[in-house]
Amino acid sequence: MSGAIRYLTARLAQQIDEELMSATGAFSLDQLMELAGLACAQTLATCYKKDTHPRVLVCCGPGNQGGDGLVAARHLGMFGYNPTVWYPKPGSKEIYQRLQAQCRNMRIPILAPSTDATSLRDALARSDVVLDAIFGFSFKPPVRAPFDDALKLITDSKLPIVSVDIPSGWDVEDGNAAGVGLEPDVLISLTAPKEGSREFKGRHFLGGRFVPKAMNEKFELNLPEYPGFDQIVELAPGAPGKL
Amino acid sequence: MSGAIRYLTARLAQQIDEELMSATGAFSLDQLMELAGLACAQTLATCYKKDTHPRVLVCCGPGNQGGDGLVAARHLGMFGYNPTVWYPKPGSKEIYQRLQAQCRNMRIPILAPSTDATSLRDALARSDVVLDAIFGFSFKPPVRAPFDDALKLITDSKLPIVSVDIPSGWDVEDGNAAGVGLEPDVLISLTAPKEGSREFKGRHFLGGRFVPKAMNEKFELNLPEYPGFDQIVELAPGAPGKL
Repeated sequence: MSGAIRYLTARLAQQIDEELMSATGAFSLDQLMELAGLACAQTLATCYKKDTHPRVLVCCGPGNQGGDGLVAARHLGMFGYNPTVWYPKPGSKEIYQRLQAQCRNMRIPILAPSTDATSLRDALARSDVVLDAIFGFSFKPPVRAPFDDALKLITDSKLPIVSVDIPSGWDVEDGNAAGVGLEPDVLISLTAPKEGSREFKGRHFLGGRFVPKAMNEKFELNLPEYPGFDQIVELAPGAPGKL
Repeated sequence: MSGAIRYLTARLAQQIDEELMSATGAFSLDQLMELAGLACAQTLATCYKKDTHPRVLVCCGPGNQGGDGLVAARHLGMFGYNPTVWYPKPGSKEIYQRLQAQCRNMRIPILAPSTDATSLRDALARSDVVLDAIFGFSFKPPVRAPFDDALKLITDSKLPIVSVDIPSGWDVEDGNAAGVGLEPDVLISLTAPKEGSREFKGRHFLGGRFVPKAMNEKFELNLPEYPGFDQIVELAPGAPGKL
């Protein structure tokens, strides 16, 4: 595989997601979310050790991005962290309910869905690091209430932030041009990085080690090799495709 | 967690499996099979490097055990191995069809279902190591035709064998007392080891890092700690619970 890794437009990210779960790709949402969430948990565990950062506030949106967050919370519990789940409003999909039950069986606290500033501020004050799984690649700015206040509170907490796929508040293609998004320390891109993350300056990982050879070639993704049997690979600054 | 790891009877293994996928446990078969198959692939990759043992013959039964094998084959492809899938008869479940399609998209050869001795002997001759996912914890001896011949051919190949959950042909509780089962070099027990594996003398790993705290306590499994963010842990000879 030669050439630079491909950065995806929102449309191409959507197309790849649909093809993975089509009759051709044959993946179920459960499978992809399990591997994606595991990659998110591995990334956080690589960057923030449980001895120094045991308390992880996992912030979940109501969509599939939030589902990745719930899977990550469960695996972080398995790894010996003390995660807490916060979400502004509950997801309606059946899988979201199942993933929450799995967290409860791991004794992971799930805060009552709330956009109340005091509740989020308190949760942040009791945390060492934030896993941001609020908005995914289907998000389009502007950030609407009550999410605008939530993003401000997370930023004001000064806690280290690990963002899933695209930092919350960023445009998938234009990045944080509007300046209202989170500024995470770590980003874990899923499947392939998005156009908007080209300007990201922190530690950048890739996860989603499930893209079949056939699809890697069809979409000319030029995905890098993952080391050993890890579910993540770090995209080194200055590496091909990284600006 | 103190005390020795619990070895499961066939009945308890069945009960835990059902509870994981009940309304309480809330797991889907897709999730559990994904993590189980990943653990199998990691175990093989830990014991047999792709530089020396690139060609893996993944032998799959028609049930959920074979599904774990198909997931493992896909991940081994992701890890850079050259797996080939052999199965004596096709699984009928819908998930089995999807897992096969995922393997095909990874360009993993799936041999035509056959119990023809020549076909299996040829496949073994072109392989460096066998992943045995033929019979699982619901198997009861005796080994019936045509599986008896298949197990003999695998044994006669002298290839190293990694068995999933319980070596094929072993009684889940009495082990290889009848002497007709495979004698693998490596065993990867899933969820918790089975009674029949107490007498196993090779390298013994545990996978299935998804048993929630609540269930670990309810069934007094005394599961060991997994290292880092691996999906497997090696049960050391002489470790608590290992005879």
